[in-house]
Amino acid sequence: MNSDRIILGIDPGTNIMGYGLIHNKGNKIELITLGVIKLGKLSNHGLKLKKIFERTRSLITEYKPDELAIEAPFYGKNVQSMLKLGRAQGVAMAAALSLDVPIHEYSPRKIKQSITGKGSASKEQVAAMLINLLSIKDPPEYFDATDGLAVAVCHYFQRKPSLDGEQYGSWKSFISKNPDKIK
Amino acid sequence: MNSDRIILGIDPGTNIMGYGLIHNKGNKIELITLGVIKLGKLSNHGLKLKKIFERTRSLITEYKPDELAIEAPFYGKNVQSMLKLGRAQGVAMAAALSLDVPIHEYSPRKIKQSITGKGSASKEQVAAMLINLLSIKDPPEYFDATDGLAVAVCHYFQRKPSLDGEQYGSWKSFISKNPDKIK
Repeated sequence: MNSDRIILGIDPGTNIMGYGLIHNKGNKIELITLGVIKLGKLSNHGLKLKKIFERTRSLITEYKPDELAIEAPFYGKNVQSMLKLGRAQGVAMAAALSLDVPIHEYSPRKIKQSITGKGSASKEQVAAMLINLLSIKDPPEYFDATDGLAVAVCHYFQRKPSLDGEQYGSWKSFISKNPDKIK
Repeated sequence: MNSDRIILGIDPGTNIMGYGLIHNKGNKIELITLGVIKLGKLSNHGLKLKKIFERTRSLITEYKPDELAIEAPFYGKNVQSMLKLGRAQGVAMAAALSLDVPIHEYSPRKIKQSITGKGSASKEQVAAMLINLLSIKDPPEYFDATDGLAVAVCHYFQRKPSLDGEQYGSWKSFISKNPDKIK
């Protein structure tokens, strides 16, 4: 038994959604891809939600991640923007739920802390760390892409039960059978 | 060409989700069913979202509504509760998006106004009006069920483009071919 999994990390927003996919085998991670889904040009909220749902589903059916990790802020400017953000998160989570992919969520602070060791790190610092960690040759155009990737890498650094209470069968087995490989 | 459609109305919440289904033929509406999906016993937010998504999908596949109408408040107590509510709405909307059912949203005030003529009507007043309008013999146990039903009836009273900008083909044709039937 070995840890061999693909993690999809996403950072859903109402104007742009960043994502990153990594392959984790044993104690190693490799970048699969990263990118953004632009929503700004869509004239209404319904179309944006539809695009988030469909593109998240496409990412899942194309890359078949074993787990989804999502950036989930717990505070925001105002209730109106939080409702919209909640909906964007909800449709992305539903895309995973509809394809039986377990979901894990992390606060922005936790993600920055995991990647850089500093909860208040800037987007630039997070991106620089990821570019180094994953040997990314072409730095992405948008920080949203590295933000999405950061969630996936943060999840790799954690080992916690999924949002719906499931344990990772394979990972648990890996830990119990390979206690010496755990940092 | 005639208006013959089924409308699913839902009022998603984080503890209970109310729903109601009506059949609209021409200028008449009939109750199909109404009820609630209880979420309070589920220990975590992820399980709640999963249940909302799955049960909304089940309602759609069972009753095959032509349109979904959703109650969507635009303000709330705090950003945290709005994020959770947004997620609940998002997964319910994704259930409709995944089955190509157009979505329409109405504020609580608009719904009360449509049903009772008064935007500040109580839940009891809304329920009483619906029980009368649809000749409901067994009043439901929860107001959440009549709240869900109220959204469907509110949508029947409106004729507006769906959230994703689509027009109702059949309804537009009905209006243009039956101008005398419009109140």
